[in-house]
Amino acid sequence: MPTINLAIVGVGKIVRDQHLPAVAGNADYRLVAAASRNGRVEGIDNFGSIEQMLSAVPSIQAVSLCMPPQYRHAAAVQALEAGKHVFLEKPPGATLSEVEDLAALAADRHVSLFASWHSRYAPAVEAAREFLSGTRIRAMRVAWKEDVRQWHPNQAWIWQPGGLGVFDPGINALSIVTRILPRPVFATAATLEFPENRDAPIAASITFTDAAGLDLSAEFDWRQTGRQSWDIVAQTEAGEMVLSEGGAKLSVDGRLLHAEPEQEYPMLYGRFAEIIRAGHSDVDLAPLRHVADAFMLGRRKVVEAFHD
Amino acid sequence: MPTINLAIVGVGKIVRDQHLPAVAGNADYRLVAAASRNGRVEGIDNFGSIEQMLSAVPSIQAVSLCMPPQYRHAAAVQALEAGKHVFLEKPPGATLSEVEDLAALAADRHVSLFASWHSRYAPAVEAAREFLSGTRIRAMRVAWKEDVRQWHPNQAWIWQPGGLGVFDPGINALSIVTRILPRPVFATAATLEFPENRDAPIAASITFTDAAGLDLSAEFDWRQTGRQSWDIVAQTEAGEMVLSEGGAKLSVDGRLLHAEPEQEYPMLYGRFAEIIRAGHSDVDLAPLRHVADAFMLGRRKVVEAFHD
Repeated sequence: MPTINLAIVGVGKIVRDQHLPAVAGNADYRLVAAASRNGRVEGIDNFGSIEQMLSAVPSIQAVSLCMPPQYRHAAAVQALEAGKHVFLEKPPGATLSEVEDLAALAADRHVSLFASWHSRYAPAVEAAREFLSGTRIRAMRVAWKEDVRQWHPNQAWIWQPGGLGVFDPGINALSIVTRILPRPVFATAATLEFPENRDAPIAASITFTDAAGLDLSAEFDWRQTGRQSWDIVAQTEAGEMVLSEGGAKLSVDGRLLHAEPEQEYPMLYGRFAEIIRAGHSDVDLAPLRHVADAFMLGRRKVVEAFHD
Repeated sequence: MPTINLAIVGVGKIVRDQHLPAVAGNADYRLVAAASRNGRVEGIDNFGSIEQMLSAVPSIQAVSLCMPPQYRHAAAVQALEAGKHVFLEKPPGATLSEVEDLAALAADRHVSLFASWHSRYAPAVEAAREFLSGTRIRAMRVAWKEDVRQWHPNQAWIWQPGGLGVFDPGINALSIVTRILPRPVFATAATLEFPENRDAPIAASITFTDAAGLDLSAEFDWRQTGRQSWDIVAQTEAGEMVLSEGGAKLSVDGRLLHAEPEQEYPMLYGRFAEIIRAGHSDVDLAPLRHVADAFMLGRRKVVEAFHD
């Protein structure tokens, strides 16, 4: 198969940690350029903006957009209008409506749009989905509790309107939950805690249900020190299922059923190549829709100021 | 055509002011029952809950759900599972995801679901759509400013989480805007003003754009005394278009082009009968999606307490 000439826009921590190694390890791609206001990728052409890059390197066939979500739509429109396939880091945008707009534009231009959810490719997610499909779920508890100072040090954008705050990691949990459950869920109540000096929540608590009356709740908290938790626990007729470490490990009644090395970004790039070759898009907005629902439905609580 | 046996649930101000006269004036319907915690409809059977009503009156074919949005999903599931067609007052629910769930259930049960947007049936809306389709829009300003004490006196639910606050009327403006514009829009920034003693906004300011770079902004305010405004003003290459009085009147450069008597609810019930007979649903979530987007993207500002 011919390689795909790829460019990356928005060179920050996630690009260095995940995108570059995943692309380097996949023979389907040749990384030909990068554009970023601050970051650089060694060994290829670098540009200060996506406009400059697209006009200087016409051989680009696909673009990964990794800048903060508030700036993603404008860049995506430029890439799609230039006929490039587009990979959107999560969350795919700052609003649902702008991503719907991109999906329509991609269809119009006959290019592929990929709204990526890396946590769906965590090692044990498919095994959890299979386990839950064969039993009845009595209750499910999601706990995504981490130390924002460790994982998002001095990331100003994440606290700005549209930056989503604690939903930036929380949406990973929602991307897994919406994959492993047998039926769609919807929020019935939520509480969002906003630090008095910030425009995005530092903690959120949401209850959900589904058409069968599922008892589901999620706790997202960025104030966790010590042990970090990214766990989904389900009480089922076949025992207690624990999907832990962000989807990496699955156990039932204490027996470890599934634990393999993490390959999220390599799998995302595999999926992106697959949809480009098949000529379609992959845009599931359910995780972002649940976040928007929680903001719309949620009670706001002001809590103490947060300082990095 | 055989008449449709209709029941109404949630008998409050909007039912007495709008639904009952519209149903009485439409020969396609026979109103056979009502269910409400507090209200009653004279001359028909009344019940304390939808469960009691559905089991006591099996001849019901369609149900209009007019309770506050926070309680609409549970009632809709009961009606759809009993094989009834469902008319949802606006907004269709407290979350986007729950309405998606209802749409899937309606399709599964082969009944019609109608997410109604009464303002789309205001007299001059279609004329405004036609005018805008033939010109280029330079800018559009939406001003929906009314006195909440006059229009929603002591409606506690509207201030609760999920009650939407000033978006309850504002969603009417959004239902018109999304109908008359030639392309989908999306929010780029928003400010929501929450009274310090309330869980829903009393004012909101939103900027939108579209794929062609439209300059659109909307101001919703519930603190307006004196003249009330429900106006959409567009600067276009064919002149200044003013769609005023909530969609009732259209003028261009000061010349009145369209003003007919208001028939919103009669037209809604006409549309509901039409989709029942055609065997399909009519569920456009764009207005509610824009509200959710504004909540997710918006900056929160705390303003002085509001007392009824």
